[in-house]
Amino acid sequence: MTGAPRVLVVAGTHGNERNAPWLLQQWRQRPELLQRHGLDVQLEIGNPEAFAAQRRYIERDLNRSFLPELLADPSQQGVEVQRARQLLERFGPGGPAACPVALDLHSTTAAMGNSLVVYGRRPADLALAAAIQHRLGLPIYLHEADAFQVGYLVERWPCGLVIEVGPVAQGLVTASICLQSQLSLEAALASLAEARVGRLRLPASLIVHRHCGSIDLPRNAGGDAIATLDPSLQGRDWQSLGVGDPIFALADGSRLRLGDLHADQGERSAARRWPVFINEAAYGEKGIAFSLTERQRLACDPSWTEALADLLA
Amino acid sequence: MTGAPRVLVVAGTHGNERNAPWLLQQWRQRPELLQRHGLDVQLEIGNPEAFAAQRRYIERDLNRSFLPELLADPSQQGVEVQRARQLLERFGPGGPAACPVALDLHSTTAAMGNSLVVYGRRPADLALAAAIQHRLGLPIYLHEADAFQVGYLVERWPCGLVIEVGPVAQGLVTASICLQSQLSLEAALASLAEARVGRLRLPASLIVHRHCGSIDLPRNAGGDAIATLDPSLQGRDWQSLGVGDPIFALADGSRLRLGDLHADQGERSAARRWPVFINEAAYGEKGIAFSLTERQRLACDPSWTEALADLLA
Repeated sequence: MTGAPRVLVVAGTHGNERNAPWLLQQWRQRPELLQRHGLDVQLEIGNPEAFAAQRRYIERDLNRSFLPELLADPSQQGVEVQRARQLLERFGPGGPAACPVALDLHSTTAAMGNSLVVYGRRPADLALAAAIQHRLGLPIYLHEADAFQVGYLVERWPCGLVIEVGPVAQGLVTASICLQSQLSLEAALASLAEARVGRLRLPASLIVHRHCGSIDLPRNAGGDAIATLDPSLQGRDWQSLGVGDPIFALADGSRLRLGDLHADQGERSAARRWPVFINEAAYGEKGIAFSLTERQRLACDPSWTEALADLLA
Repeated sequence: MTGAPRVLVVAGTHGNERNAPWLLQQWRQRPELLQRHGLDVQLEIGNPEAFAAQRRYIERDLNRSFLPELLADPSQQGVEVQRARQLLERFGPGGPAACPVALDLHSTTAAMGNSLVVYGRRPADLALAAAIQHRLGLPIYLHEADAFQVGYLVERWPCGLVIEVGPVAQGLVTASICLQSQLSLEAALASLAEARVGRLRLPASLIVHRHCGSIDLPRNAGGDAIATLDPSLQGRDWQSLGVGDPIFALADGSRLRLGDLHADQGERSAARRWPVFINEAAYGEKGIAFSLTERQRLACDPSWTEALADLLA
C-alpha cells in the first residue's frame, strides 16, 4: 500500500475496555472485515500489559500519559510512560511508520451511545469530526481548557480523535458496542479518504458539546461519598438539564439539584447544561461523577478541510 | 438486642461490586435506614482488601473459597482463604457471633434484575426463597450439581442465599441497583422475622430456574474466542430460548443457535432453556458466557418452614 497515508488505529488504550481489541483481533485475522478505504491502517493495542492483566492500566492511565514533560523525564520508566514513548517513536511525527492521524477506540460504562471526543480546536480534528457527524449524526464532546485532565494520546498526533461507545461494563465484549465502534471507524476512514483526494465536503456547521467542568459526588469531611447519582440522571448522557433537575440523591432521601451545584461552584445560574460521562466507572478515582457541557454550533471553516488534506497529502 | 437471632449480611464479597458496600456504609451511619424487623443484623464487608483495591479479589475468588478441604489445609494462607476462615470463625456455627442465616449481596453486569440464587435444596433456604418470591416476585436461580463452581459463602451457614442485582458495571454505584438490593434484603429479614414467631405462610409452590450447565464462547485451537454473544441474546436473562434462537455471532456474520449447542454438548434437543448471567464480566475468566437453566415449579413443603423456624428459635 505504498503511498497511502498511514492511519494509526489504537484499541485497548485502557486494558479493561475489551470491545475494540476484539475488533482489532478480527481485523488482523480477516482484513476484509474492515473497510479501509485505501488507507494504510496501522492496528495497535494501546496498552498490551494492561490488556493482558484485564486492568485499565498497570501504573498510570496511559491516556493521561502523553505529556511532553513527563515523556522527556528520564527518571520516568513506568510501564505506561515507556509505552507512550514507544508508540510516539514508531507512529508519531518523524517515526519510521509516522501516521498523520490517530484514532483511539474507547468504550465507557456511561450511556454515551456512539460518540466522538475532540481535544481542543485543531482545524484538522474539527474537519474530521464534522465529517463523521455529517455521516452518522454522532454527538461530539469538545474537551478543552481542563487543567486537571491532560495528556491524551491523540493530542500528540497531528490529527486525532477518540471514538467513545457505551454503555458497556468494563471487561465485556458486546456485539452492539463492537458494531457501533466499527461504523464510526469506517466513517472516519471514509472521510479521511475523501479529504486526501480533495473531495471532502463539510456541512455548514457542526454541533459540539463543549466541556464546562466535572462534578464530583458530594463528600463528607473524611472524603467518603454521601450521595449517589440521582436515579433520574443515570443513563441520561447528552440530555439537557435545567437548574431544577435533581443530580444527586442523599441517603436521607433528599436531593441536590443542578442549581445547587451552580451556586457551589460559581457556575452561571439559570444555564442549561448537557451532562456526559455519567457514572463512568473509571472516573470514580478521578473524582468525576459526570461532566457538564454546553451545546454550541460551530460554523465549519474551509480552512479545516485544507488543514486535513495537507496532512494526508 | 439480646435474644434476637443474628443474621449475617455480607456486602463486597467481590471487591468491585460496590452497590451493597455503599448501602452497608449508609446503614452503619444511619441504622434507621434499614428495616431490621427486630433481628440482630451483623453487617460485614466480605473482602475488605479487594474492596480497598477495587478488584474482584486479590488472589482467588472469595465466593469460591468456602471449601472445607481448602480451609482445613494449613499450607493455604492466601488473603481470601484467611478471610473465609475469619468469617466462619466469628459468624459461623459455634462462633462467638454465630449466625443461623447468611445473606450475601451481589451485583452483576448481566441483566438479572433483582433476583435470588439458592445453592442446592436445603429446606430452610427454599423456605426463605419461596417467602421472598411470594413478597416480591423475584426469579430464583437454583444452582446445584455443578462440579466446576463450588465453595460459595452461603453454603457454609445453616441457611443462606445470594441477592443478585443487575445490570450494573463493575466499580459503579447506581441508585436503582441499591434500591433493589435493599428491597430484597428487607423482604428477607421480614420473612425471617415471621418464621421466627411461627407466622411464615408459604405459597403453594415456587418457581425456580434450575442450573443445567454453563456455556463458553466458541474458541479456536489457540483458545481465543471466535464469536461474541449474539446481540439478540444480550440483556435477555430469564427469557426462554428455543433451539432455533441465535446464541453466538461469528465474525463472518454467521450464527450459532441453541440447537447447535445442544448437539455439541449432549443436551436434549427440542428443550427450551432459560439463560442467566449472560455476559457477566467476571465470568469470562471462568469460561462462562452464560448459563442455561430449566424452569420448574416446586411444591412448598411444610417441613421447609419448620426447618427455618428451628434455626431461628
